[in-house]
Amino acid sequence: MESLSVALGNRSYPIHIGAGLIDRPELYAPYLRGSAAIVTNKIVAPLYLQRVRKALGSARICEIVVEDGEQAKDWPTLDRVFDALLAARLGRDGLIIALGGGVVGDLAGFAAATYQRGVPFLQVPTTLLAQVDSSVGGKTAVNHGRGKNMIGAFHQPLAVIADLDTLDSLPDRELRAGLAEVIKHGAALDAPFLGWLELNMDKLLARDRAALTYAIRRSCELKAAIVAEDERESGVRALLNFGHTFGHAIETATGFGSWLHGEAVAAGMVMAAGLSARAGFLPSSDAARIEALVKRAGLPTRAPKLPPERWRDLMAVDKKAAGARVRFVLLHGLGHAKLESAVDDRLVAETIAAAAQ
Amino acid sequence: MESLSVALGNRSYPIHIGAGLIDRPELYAPYLRGSAAIVTNKIVAPLYLQRVRKALGSARICEIVVEDGEQAKDWPTLDRVFDALLAARLGRDGLIIALGGGVVGDLAGFAAATYQRGVPFLQVPTTLLAQVDSSVGGKTAVNHGRGKNMIGAFHQPLAVIADLDTLDSLPDRELRAGLAEVIKHGAALDAPFLGWLELNMDKLLARDRAALTYAIRRSCELKAAIVAEDERESGVRALLNFGHTFGHAIETATGFGSWLHGEAVAAGMVMAAGLSARAGFLPSSDAARIEALVKRAGLPTRAPKLPPERWRDLMAVDKKAAGARVRFVLLHGLGHAKLESAVDDRLVAETIAAAAQ
Repeated sequence: MESLSVALGNRSYPIHIGAGLIDRPELYAPYLRGSAAIVTNKIVAPLYLQRVRKALGSARICEIVVEDGEQAKDWPTLDRVFDALLAARLGRDGLIIALGGGVVGDLAGFAAATYQRGVPFLQVPTTLLAQVDSSVGGKTAVNHGRGKNMIGAFHQPLAVIADLDTLDSLPDRELRAGLAEVIKHGAALDAPFLGWLELNMDKLLARDRAALTYAIRRSCELKAAIVAEDERESGVRALLNFGHTFGHAIETATGFGSWLHGEAVAAGMVMAAGLSARAGFLPSSDAARIEALVKRAGLPTRAPKLPPERWRDLMAVDKKAAGARVRFVLLHGLGHAKLESAVDDRLVAETIAAAAQ
Repeated sequence: MESLSVALGNRSYPIHIGAGLIDRPELYAPYLRGSAAIVTNKIVAPLYLQRVRKALGSARICEIVVEDGEQAKDWPTLDRVFDALLAARLGRDGLIIALGGGVVGDLAGFAAATYQRGVPFLQVPTTLLAQVDSSVGGKTAVNHGRGKNMIGAFHQPLAVIADLDTLDSLPDRELRAGLAEVIKHGAALDAPFLGWLELNMDKLLARDRAALTYAIRRSCELKAAIVAEDERESGVRALLNFGHTFGHAIETATGFGSWLHGEAVAAGMVMAAGLSARAGFLPSSDAARIEALVKRAGLPTRAPKLPPERWRDLMAVDKKAAGARVRFVLLHGLGHAKLESAVDDRLVAETIAAAAQ
């Protein structure tokens, strides 16, 4: 087991990465003070729910199983979670455990942030995307018809328990979606890591255990450092949204769920890299490297065809919009993302036009 | 204008108390960075909305007017608030202004806590209850069918602007409901203040301006000191819930709204004082003083008739319940509230039986 820390003063917490972790009682015990609720979904529950339950020993456990997919990050599902927590009389010292991918983590995390004004929670991510990105950093949210993750809270977990074994059950499509966020960390923050990914993409797709371990660990290190510096995204943390302004627009336009989040981010990164090149910040050859890597990972490099006004509407509501102006995370060289608030509308339009070809 | 501060480090904020404050642009200006949304209700809007708008000058303003009453603290209303904020494209630097009583403050505050993972907000309380209690301290929430304030967040305002003039439009019933929380501050925390209230209750009911100013200021001082010590209610802040365990049960049982919150707290305080006396913590004569003061304020001293099991169910779900055990805030002498987790069930049963007589 490897462990690293997200340094947030008295709210610092460990990320544990290794094989067989979900079965280890000692990883949960420090956080169990009363009863607990496990929030998971219909795909994950048959695979891992009883194993986590067993590791929790004699604690009183409430099981909450939601639908699979992005659709579960909605109001009615959240309300059912609250209803189950209240029916189980989970108290303020009760622990919520998010067992699943990014959707379960975001939903259960937001429930933990707001149930009785906040209860402790653990992230037990079972997808690559959740292990490399969404389980770390305390962002929780549900979606709104007008935009993704529009309602949420910053609520840090007490620990992240990332069990590599759970990736064995992951469909290839989900594995690739997770790789999108891994590529993002390299492209936005760490050019050598991007180079490593170019060399090791085949191993990652073949689920080589050592390669996956390194990719997860390096992603978590990069993200933990950013979160420690800017927990509430008033500055540098926004750089982790590379590819997300376009990506969220794609997700909203297509109705949450038909594109996986990672797939939308993949196409969004290709667009953001293209926009970076058009703005003269990034050599076209580097934008091409990102596109090639996204393609090799089996991820989409093109966006669905949408009218330009629709793109603009969708992006304007994105939470990275300050006032009326859409801000983009662009690359000033590989591994050097910067937030840009004065991007020429014409270049954005060209990028949108190119994306649907 | 009098001002005091809630001391919370870099999240400290002022409470301004005085006449004509809602019209003063300089009280809002420090917090306006982009556009703003005013959340208010159908009773308050015709009285004060345009005046606040005018004080905000040329800022782009979105108006959100919800129904009057506790019923507005529900999911559908919250969702309409989010919808309006998104339609108005309020950004992360947008300011939410809660203009109204406790319901508007809790609802708008929770919207501010969770819209785009948190935006700044101002409390402009227009009821006595909100001015002496709910607008101070950052507790925000909505109700759930299974209990009051079950879903919420701690989210401190940037300032509280308490305009005494707005109390002129307050119905007598609402004034009395506010006095319940004033009495609570005296009974739980400050015996001399309770004595002052006994001497000045007639003046307060007659809306004597000097008496109201003192009662608001002293309540805010007492509450601000508690909040500064224990923002997230892990300890001493729970004492502010004196009367609330029984009170919330009354509100839930009667369906939020038929009893005003302050009315339920009033009957709840009489019950909690009675329980304190039964447990031997408080002289019966002091419990009788509290009951007499509640009665003089024109507030209910008795609870609705409910089966004992129903009481127990309602109280067990209250957020002050740790695990299976209901904790009560009891008085060890006037002005000396303490949290008790081992109260004899028989004494609780006697208190419940006495409450409906």
